[in-house]
Amino acid sequence: MSDIGCHALVWTGTFEREGLTRAVERTRNAGYDLLEIPLLRPHAFDVATAKEILADSDLDVSASMGLSDATDIGSADPEIVKAGEQTLNKAVEIVSELGGRHLCGVLYGVLKKYPGPATAQGRANSQDVLRRVARRAADSGVQLSLEVVNRYESNMFNTCKGALEYLDEVGDDSIKVHLDSYHMNIEESGMIAPVLAAADRLGYVHIGESHRGYLGSGTVDFGSFFRALAMVDYDGPIAFESFSTAVVDDILSVSLAVWRNLWDDSDDLGRHANDFIRGKLRAVETIALH
Amino acid sequence: MSDIGCHALVWTGTFEREGLTRAVERTRNAGYDLLEIPLLRPHAFDVATAKEILADSDLDVSASMGLSDATDIGSADPEIVKAGEQTLNKAVEIVSELGGRHLCGVLYGVLKKYPGPATAQGRANSQDVLRRVARRAADSGVQLSLEVVNRYESNMFNTCKGALEYLDEVGDDSIKVHLDSYHMNIEESGMIAPVLAAADRLGYVHIGESHRGYLGSGTVDFGSFFRALAMVDYDGPIAFESFSTAVVDDILSVSLAVWRNLWDDSDDLGRHANDFIRGKLRAVETIALH
Amino acid sequence: MSDIGCHALVWTGTFEREGLTRAVERTRNAGYDLLEIPLLRPHAFDVATAKEILADSDLDVSASMGLSDATDIGSADPEIVKAGEQTLNKAVEIVSELGGRHLCGVLYGVLKKYPGPATAQGRANSQDVLRRVARRAADSGVQLSLEVVNRYESNMFNTCKGALEYLDEVGDDSIKVHLDSYHMNIEESGMIAPVLAAADRLGYVHIGESHRGYLGSGTVDFGSFFRALAMVDYDGPIAFESFSTAVVDDILSVSLAVWRNLWDDSDDLGRHANDFIRGKLRAVETIALH
Amino acid sequence: MSDIGCHALVWTGTFEREGLTRAVERTRNAGYDLLEIPLLRPHAFDVATAKEILADSDLDVSASMGLSDATDIGSADPEIVKAGEQTLNKAVEIVSELGGRHLCGVLYGVLKKYPGPATAQGRANSQDVLRRVARRAADSGVQLSLEVVNRYESNMFNTCKGALEYLDEVGDDSIKVHLDSYHMNIEESGMIAPVLAAADRLGYVHIGESHRGYLGSGTVDFGSFFRALAMVDYDGPIAFESFSTAVVDDILSVSLAVWRNLWDDSDDLGRHANDFIRGKLRAVETIALH
Repeated sequence: MSDIGCHALVWTGTFEREGLTRAVERTRNAGYDLLEIPLLRPHAFDVATAKEILADSDLDVSASMGLSDATDIGSADPEIVKAGEQTLNKAVEIVSELGGRHLCGVLYGVLKKYPGPATAQGRANSQDVLRRVARRAADSGVQLSLEVVNRYESNMFNTCKGALEYLDEVGDDSIKVHLDSYHMNIEESGMIAPVLAAADRLGYVHIGESHRGYLGSGTVDFGSFFRALAMVDYDGPIAFESFSTAVVDDILSVSLAVWRNLWDDSDDLGRHANDFIRGKLRAVETIALH
Repeated sequence: MSDIGCHALVWTGTFEREGLTRAVERTRNAGYDLLEIPLLRPHAFDVATAKEILADSDLDVSASMGLSDATDIGSADPEIVKAGEQTLNKAVEIVSELGGRHLCGVLYGVLKKYPGPATAQGRANSQDVLRRVARRAADSGVQLSLEVVNRYESNMFNTCKGALEYLDEVGDDSIKVHLDSYHMNIEESGMIAPVLAAADRLGYVHIGESHRGYLGSGTVDFGSFFRALAMVDYDGPIAFESFSTAVVDDILSVSLAVWRNLWDDSDDLGRHANDFIRGKLRAVETIALH
Repeated sequence: MSDIGCHALVWTGTFEREGLTRAVERTRNAGYDLLEIPLLRPHAFDVATAKEILADSDLDVSASMGLSDATDIGSADPEIVKAGEQTLNKAVEIVSELGGRHLCGVLYGVLKKYPGPATAQGRANSQDVLRRVARRAADSGVQLSLEVVNRYESNMFNTCKGALEYLDEVGDDSIKVHLDSYHMNIEESGMIAPVLAAADRLGYVHIGESHRGYLGSGTVDFGSFFRALAMVDYDGPIAFESFSTAVVDDILSVSLAVWRNLWDDSDDLGRHANDFIRGKLRAVETIALH
Repeated sequence: MSDIGCHALVWTGTFEREGLTRAVERTRNAGYDLLEIPLLRPHAFDVATAKEILADSDLDVSASMGLSDATDIGSADPEIVKAGEQTLNKAVEIVSELGGRHLCGVLYGVLKKYPGPATAQGRANSQDVLRRVARRAADSGVQLSLEVVNRYESNMFNTCKGALEYLDEVGDDSIKVHLDSYHMNIEESGMIAPVLAAADRLGYVHIGESHRGYLGSGTVDFGSFFRALAMVDYDGPIAFESFSTAVVDDILSVSLAVWRNLWDDSDDLGRHANDFIRGKLRAVETIALH
């Protein structure tokens, strides 16, 4: 059965002791199984503190991330690519130390609006790095899942099909696809075909509304998405993601173009999303009775 | 704010002490505000017992009904019409004694597949009766709401527009329209326009899935329906309705053509629906923040 | 590639020379490939005339039907069952003589609201008959497809899953499932899973709106349905069906509970549906480019 | 009745004689009423040639545009703001000379991913300019409509509600809102409420799929959008917009983050969209018959 998780930015924009403590407490109170921590700057992340705070709770943990211009493994510059590989290895190490099993997100590049199409060299570079990082990750019991994001957040691929082609070229079956309903709503032909195409290569799922606010207050066809997850017997993590100007990280707010406030009460938002996700899972489960 | 209710047939197929007691307890445990009791045979209904059982709870109560061939006020036969008027008056009396404020359903005829179109005489007869019953109901603090049902359950009208035209002819503004998502999914052009058309003439709402099973496991566009209810500031009752061979009344099961089992655990079904409805209401409420 | 067809009742309520001639001409003018003729009373159908009229056109032809109370092969009465078998054989013969390859509809019983659940005996009887009729049909190059209809039109099965179980018991792979979007909208959990479940056992498709009026003016999720047809590479007939009081057969109008006028201009309706269906097919075809 | 239009970038990426001639011919052949020309660099646009080419056709014309960093009227730099005002005035002049009545798009700023939130000064500057430009436009019989675009293409407002607030501050009722289904799918709570909110302040409509490919091959709920347009009796232009790497302008391709090919046959795409839009309009028109 899937762990139901919540992205830490629902609760906190900082990840020192206080922020993490708040995120852990609120995530548990809202009824989730898992906390997803954004590793915005892996080398600056205080693993020991995080480990201690998580140890006091029964929450599972996962991490998501994107690279920066200085660590873009999709770059043509060998120095930048090398820095990216170190960052990814560091992130794998952190997840492993925290007892997590999933590292996901835009692991293949920067989460930004690129000024032009991806290059063949950049693509090959990123694939070489991921091949190596995936082997280390596998040794640490950590699974990598590459998030498919919209055209404004990556130029490498924007659909599940594109990600599968990219992964076919990488050739390491341990790397999975990470689908996010927010991005799918923009880029995919629908919410079902991509999930069926990924099938057991689906490794991580983000649940976000079309505008990244309350679930059910936008245009995403969640009914179809959850039906599809059931069709392929998906049992990996399902994590809620929402961004508002109420809680943001200074880097992410600009990357994600969060200009408005779609909620102000994190607790209400988080509880609502947890109930929403579990209610959808139960609803599609009952289809077997039909 | 709307009372969130549950149709008693989710819990019981009989309405003596035991059945009603179970319905009341389970409805409360599932988190609802209101119990909707089907008055299948008003003259046989034990009001005193029902009143006693309800008095022990803090639930609000409403009643729904359809007429029978012997009491069809849409008939051309004056005797049958007269019997129908007595039945409706009895039902109003029961609702009033129970402390309820809503009598809804197919108050204008039989819930059945008619063998031909409605007649002008039958239409006029039913309107005459409703005009008189509505006045008595108003005196008792009971509001009548006419349910719009699908083509297989009435030939009088099958859309909100049809109901509004029918009510315009009745000419008593105290009678309202009762919309049901299950029927709307079959007959209306969508889930929003009918609600906007009814606006403050909307008096009662049924929430049923397309197949009358778990909410979210069918084809009804609930997202649009709840948005529409918010657009017109609807604050009347919203009651969940579901039918399965697991719990049925012997008359209703045939009228409703319930041939299969869409659930077996009433408690799980009822809790799920209560959470679903409240979750949708909260989601559309947050649209104001956008 | 699928033949795109139109149900003859869009154009005519009678099937003598004049009615059929009109149906053939208008169906061609509206751009369709195929005319679906309802064999309401097979023994009274004038095959020679129909053959002559069709010969002058380049339209393909198919036939649909339902049995009557006197020919219900789902009955427990051997005489009625026998009469039903003769009727079905007659229908197969007609389709074959007309050069058609498809006989579809409620071939397993009466299209009516049954007064109670199907019986084991009736189910077995209908299956025995269909087993024999299917063999004769196969010899004539005619494929039988059993239409899945809603609870108010049959008690034998109301979902694709139910039909597949019924057909598994029949055990003759030549008999296929006939899905109709109008009925699916009421009974299925969605428009995709049933098609995937049927896959190459899908033999015939009806396209009808939720209220059986203009396509796109109701609640059916056609986008999902056409995506599903593409996913299973469906290439059988796709026929538009719509009913209005503007054109009806006296038997069907009551069976189908057609109480209102959803269109008055058959030509406009028919052209619109043909464009709608072809437009949807093209749209989902382009998904391969994504 | 609405003019149905097509964005010229469906046909050509250049706007000299050859490109414009092709755009005009193909737009007519595909069945449209109107050609929408992107005024990417107004001062470099050859009005005389465009006028001559358009004169030979019976197409109506409109223009859309966005400003550049050097002409951003939402800037705090007076020189840039002034340059922007000149550019807008030039564009108004062009539309007027071409005999057009509509100038739309991101008239209030640059179509780009901004590096931070809009500033109060920039907002005020853009409003001052628009107030003046609108008066000149009105004198020329040209209506300005401000396009609501997604968070990655503007930071000024991303919803219809935001645009209406912005326009309330401008205080000139002649300036209208321009809604685009592609952007609405990302930012709005649904496809109906924004249209009802704008009502007669809706001045221009773009029809784009969620991924900007073939209509009906993505996730946009067009059924709801066209119902809403009918509800407010919208009769302004409805223009199809689609972008692919098959045809792009070098500036726009990067602004719009077009990294993949969603079509290659402009003629097929354009005809399909024209049929799609007219089919939807007809479908919702028939709802009046229900």
